[in-house]
Amino acid sequence: MSLTISGATRLYVLLGDPLDKARSPEHYNAVFAARGIDAVLVPMEVAPTAFEALITALKHVRNLDGLIITMPHKQAVLAHLDRLGDAAQRVGAANVARREADGSWFGDMYDGPGFVGGLRARGIAAEARRVYMVGCGGVARAMALALAELGVAQLRLHDLDARRAASLAETVRAQYPGVACDAGAADPAQFDLAINATPLGMRPGDPLPFDVTGLAPSTAVADVTTKPEITPLLAAARERGCPIATGRDMFEAQTLLAERLFGWSA
Amino acid sequence: MSLTISGATRLYVLLGDPLDKARSPEHYNAVFAARGIDAVLVPMEVAPTAFEALITALKHVRNLDGLIITMPHKQAVLAHLDRLGDAAQRVGAANVARREADGSWFGDMYDGPGFVGGLRARGIAAEARRVYMVGCGGVARAMALALAELGVAQLRLHDLDARRAASLAETVRAQYPGVACDAGAADPAQFDLAINATPLGMRPGDPLPFDVTGLAPSTAVADVTTKPEITPLLAAARERGCPIATGRDMFEAQTLLAERLFGWSA
Repeated sequence: MSLTISGATRLYVLLGDPLDKARSPEHYNAVFAARGIDAVLVPMEVAPTAFEALITALKHVRNLDGLIITMPHKQAVLAHLDRLGDAAQRVGAANVARREADGSWFGDMYDGPGFVGGLRARGIAAEARRVYMVGCGGVARAMALALAELGVAQLRLHDLDARRAASLAETVRAQYPGVACDAGAADPAQFDLAINATPLGMRPGDPLPFDVTGLAPSTAVADVTTKPEITPLLAAARERGCPIATGRDMFEAQTLLAERLFGWSA
Repeated sequence: MSLTISGATRLYVLLGDPLDKARSPEHYNAVFAARGIDAVLVPMEVAPTAFEALITALKHVRNLDGLIITMPHKQAVLAHLDRLGDAAQRVGAANVARREADGSWFGDMYDGPGFVGGLRARGIAAEARRVYMVGCGGVARAMALALAELGVAQLRLHDLDARRAASLAETVRAQYPGVACDAGAADPAQFDLAINATPLGMRPGDPLPFDVTGLAPSTAVADVTTKPEITPLLAAARERGCPIATGRDMFEAQTLLAERLFGWSA
C-alpha cells in the first residue's frame, strides 16, 4: 500500500535541526503505508530560537497526535510535557511525545532503552558486565543511564572533554550508587562491551573511536552510527571475531518502542 | 510512483477549520507522487484563536515552502504576507502563500480566478453577459470580484441576508464602476449565467438554491459544491438543456493556478 493523505489524516511531526539526514520520516511513513494507518509524519527543521513558539503553537493543531524530537530539542521539549516516562525523567530529555485522550502530553526518552534493545536483539548481554563507552554527549547520557538501570557491573566513560566524562559519571553514580561508574582513559581492553557513542565513523577517513587491537574476541562492540551501518570500528571488531551491535539495531529497537507508544504496533 | 517522505522533504501546510472534507491534500500529494516532486502537503486543523501563533511559528520552519489557506483563515493570513497578487488585493483575502527566495511571503487568492477558469474549461462565456449569483459569503465575494474583473455586463446578487448582498454589491461597484452590480430578488430568469455560491446541495434533502423552471436552455448554471459534483441544481439545469460548470471544474482550475505558483506545473 502507498501513503495517502486526506484532510482527515492524523499528523505527527519530527522536530530537529538539522533534519536532512533523519531516518524516521521514511521509517514511520512506511509503517503507516504498510499497515493502512491514516497518519503521516513530516519533518519540521527549526532552530532552537524558534522551537518554543513552534511547539506551543503545534499543540493547538487539532489533528496533531504526537511528536518525535531529535537534536537539539530533546531537553527543551520537557517544559512542554505534562507527564514523563521513567527514562525521560532519569535523562532529563525526551524524544517522543504523545497527546493523551484528555489533551495532556506524555513524553519519554527511547535513546537508552533503544540502545539496550539493540544489544538484546543481537544476543549481547550487558547485565553484570564491565562496559566501556567513548563519547559523553546527549545520546551517550541516555545510554549510560539505561545501562546503569539494566544493572551493568562497571561503566567506564571516556570523552575528549574530560570534564564532560566526569560529569556524566557523577550523574550515573548519583542515580545508581550500585554501579561502579567512573571517567577514565581511552582504553577498552579488559571490558566485556565497548561502545562508540561519538560521531566518528560517519565520515570517510575518520579515525577509529578506540583501538581494537587489544580486544578479546569475547568483547562485544557497539556503535550508534546508522550511516554507514557497518562503521570501520565495527568492521575491525568483526574481523577480530567480536560480536557487534549496530546503530541500525538501536534505531530499530527505538522505533518499535515508539510504534507501541503511539499504538501503531502491538 | 508513490509519495515518500524523508528528512529532506519540502513541506506545504493546509490551514483551515474544519479540514476533514478538504480535497487539496489528496490532490496535491498525488501531483507530487506522479511528478516525483520531493514535497508533501499536510492538513493542520486550527481554530481562529490559535491561527496567528501557528502561522507565525510555521514561518520559522526552514523546510516550509508554502501554505494553502482555507476557511476561516483567508482574511487573517493577510497580516502575515509581505506581498499580494492582484486578486488577493481586490478581495482582501488569500488562499495560497509562497515563501520567496529572499525569505519574504507572497500570497494570492485563487477562488475567483479558479471559478472563472472553471467556466472557461466548460466553454461558458461570462464576458459582457448578465450574471445572477445566490450566496454572498467569502467565496462569493472572490467570485463576484473576479466576474467584474472579467467584464460581465450585469451582476445581480442575492442572499438570505439582504444586507450582505447589498454590501457586496457596493464593494463590486466601488472597484468596478463599469459593471452594473446590484442586490435583488431570488429570480435567475433573464440572465445568461446563474450561479449557486451557497452550500445548498451538499446535504441530501437541501432545497434548490434557486428555481430553474424559468431558465432558458441557453442560460448556463454553475455551482461551487464539489461533493456531490452534480448537485440537484446542476442535474435539474442539465435536464433543461442548460450548459453547466461544477465545483470540481472550479477546484481543478484553482489547483492548476496553485501548481503554477509553486512551480509544480509548467
